[in-house]
Amino acid sequence: MNDMTIGLVGFGTVGQALYKVIGRAANAHASITKICVRSLDKPRDVEVPAGLLTTSPDDILSDPSINLVVEVIDNAEASFRIVSEALRRGKNVVSGNKAMLARHLPELMELQRATGAALLYDASSCGSIPVIRNLEEYYDNDLLLEVKGILNGSSNFILSRVFDHGEDYADALLRAQKLGFAESDPTHDVSGADSLNKLVIITLHAIGVYVAPSGIFVYGIPTLGDEDIRYAREKGMKIKLVAQVVKLPDNRFTMFVMPEFVAPNRYIYAVDDEYNGVVIRGECYDRQFMFGKGAGGYPTASSLLSDITALRHDYRYEYKKTAFTPRPVYTTDLPLKLYARFSTTDLATLLPWKEIREEYRSPSYRYVVGEIMLSDLLKSSSILAAADIFLCNIPYFFAGRDDLPS
Amino acid sequence: MNDMTIGLVGFGTVGQALYKVIGRAANAHASITKICVRSLDKPRDVEVPAGLLTTSPDDILSDPSINLVVEVIDNAEASFRIVSEALRRGKNVVSGNKAMLARHLPELMELQRATGAALLYDASSCGSIPVIRNLEEYYDNDLLLEVKGILNGSSNFILSRVFDHGEDYADALLRAQKLGFAESDPTHDVSGADSLNKLVIITLHAIGVYVAPSGIFVYGIPTLGDEDIRYAREKGMKIKLVAQVVKLPDNRFTMFVMPEFVAPNRYIYAVDDEYNGVVIRGECYDRQFMFGKGAGGYPTASSLLSDITALRHDYRYEYKKTAFTPRPVYTTDLPLKLYARFSTTDLATLLPWKEIREEYRSPSYRYVVGEIMLSDLLKSSSILAAADIFLCNIPYFFAGRDDLPS
Repeated sequence: MNDMTIGLVGFGTVGQALYKVIGRAANAHASITKICVRSLDKPRDVEVPAGLLTTSPDDILSDPSINLVVEVIDNAEASFRIVSEALRRGKNVVSGNKAMLARHLPELMELQRATGAALLYDASSCGSIPVIRNLEEYYDNDLLLEVKGILNGSSNFILSRVFDHGEDYADALLRAQKLGFAESDPTHDVSGADSLNKLVIITLHAIGVYVAPSGIFVYGIPTLGDEDIRYAREKGMKIKLVAQVVKLPDNRFTMFVMPEFVAPNRYIYAVDDEYNGVVIRGECYDRQFMFGKGAGGYPTASSLLSDITALRHDYRYEYKKTAFTPRPVYTTDLPLKLYARFSTTDLATLLPWKEIREEYRSPSYRYVVGEIMLSDLLKSSSILAAADIFLCNIPYFFAGRDDLPS
Repeated sequence: MNDMTIGLVGFGTVGQALYKVIGRAANAHASITKICVRSLDKPRDVEVPAGLLTTSPDDILSDPSINLVVEVIDNAEASFRIVSEALRRGKNVVSGNKAMLARHLPELMELQRATGAALLYDASSCGSIPVIRNLEEYYDNDLLLEVKGILNGSSNFILSRVFDHGEDYADALLRAQKLGFAESDPTHDVSGADSLNKLVIITLHAIGVYVAPSGIFVYGIPTLGDEDIRYAREKGMKIKLVAQVVKLPDNRFTMFVMPEFVAPNRYIYAVDDEYNGVVIRGECYDRQFMFGKGAGGYPTASSLLSDITALRHDYRYEYKKTAFTPRPVYTTDLPLKLYARFSTTDLATLLPWKEIREEYRSPSYRYVVGEIMLSDLLKSSSILAAADIFLCNIPYFFAGRDDLPS
């Protein structure tokens, strides 16, 4: 077993936390010998020997003594260039960049096959919760039926502040940013884009199929309003931003990211603040629930460390389920049951509802509960983004179950 | 990759569930070609071709076409003979026998090293929750501080019935047996012995040290009484049978199994019925919580299947942490804070208390809250077993924290 000699690319919150964590983990036999930063003289919380810093990724990529590149920068395209170049040069890579991964996984799988180098990225999904590893290695059989969870700590923190503490949405967002939970661009958190990226990665390891983010319906929480919160409370529910991949009959599966009404008897109901929670449902084990810190420098760093030590033991993702037969087929051809709050918008002409089941109107608040095809929602994505409405999923309807108390 | 040709030893609840589960998992490429049973003509729920059955383990051990032995019998010593002989003959083994493993792990580690054959046993601890695999592979660094959980579904089911449904202890035990949650001998469940066996296995993978069950304090729930339940309720707590291994300062660690007062803000408070829940605490990731079905044929069978498919991918436990330096040292030299209810017994002479902090006496109910050394408790084990008392741990006192609301 070789000691891990690490070139670290990116030295923000996560990079600095990793630097400290590795210092505490003597039995990891890992050391950071070079750190690529954007600016050499930016003030930092962590003191590092000046000789460690560089502004050129090439100083890491071309250093033969470095056998592992850990990449924790913010920019997806720069990340892809560095990660793929490192693999091409035969270096193993650990990355936490979900936007990059969600977009480039097929190429990165191919690059790993071609070069023999390994890329691990458990830190990319749910911070410290070992979701990817367990889906790949433990739930590695035909029994898996569903993975459903709260995958974004920042938006969940905001929803908790709004729901449990009666805080204003804007104040809650500001607080999330101050506490370092939100990404540099918080729109990725609240729009559901970050959850979607994680869902794409999770789905590859859950059922062996890659679906590009652009083909998946995603809807976030920026238009959540006071009436929606009151509606959920009156039903005894919380609203959570939920990502899910669900197997359907006839070897099909679906996936989407949406706000959802969550009843108290659901495991994710109790997932509050910056925490993440994932439910893995299977044919024989019913529901397994994994819960932990999904955001923040240290939880992410501890996850990176787990990947670093795994590489020391020659672990690599085998993408086992991509070899499963028959391969499940992705579909959006199924009805969802949604709550839709609107004011000025004419909902009936905006969206091709299959059926409106309930309708409520008052001078200040209007909503409908209706059925709509997921495929139609996906087609309407750009219209929805501009409209003055809020959509919320009423769960399990599409799977023939309807758990919402009436 | 070879297909798995399985000889199954034991065909009770778990064995029959495994037979069905394998039939549903086409991508596991596994098939059961021989089943060793105690009696050929016992009626069974599952129909199998008569040619599959044998009463001699030798028919499996000496069959060169069988490359995997799955052992799910009830008897620990018979299990050890079969498992060790299979390894000696170079066959991989999957076992769920925690009593056998807790007693024989050092020899079985050595046998694996010597023969090159692999033994997996994730099903032995917490049914369908992948605790062993995650401790070995993901929490494989110096950051781990504590593993604490409810490891026995049957006793937890009884405690839930008693606490949440006001049922009688004896009725609840009977119901657990009827539902198939309790072991054939339920004293192992309620005495804590089963939890202890799992804790021994977990500790080897959590911190790399094997401690024989005989050196660990274990105390169960058979003497739990109505007053204890009322006491806990008045404090807003539940009583759970908790197993824990905890790192202490100076590279020491302790472990024990005891009933414990659990406050509502603890993750395991919500672990009810036959479920298991495990909290993994670490330096950087705080607390991770894993939750799932811990008892029953199908959850255990799905866990066996995960081990079966892992062997197909040449996975084996490396017992990584046994190579850690410095090795943590097991200690019982620390004070616990306990609640002790008694009636006729003279507690002061029975146990060498360090300090009695509270004392309550009424004609029908007497208890003390006091401090006692864990080492003294361990020495008093046989006395305690015969005494008319009930002991319950007040958690975190030994770690310098005292979370019990006053």
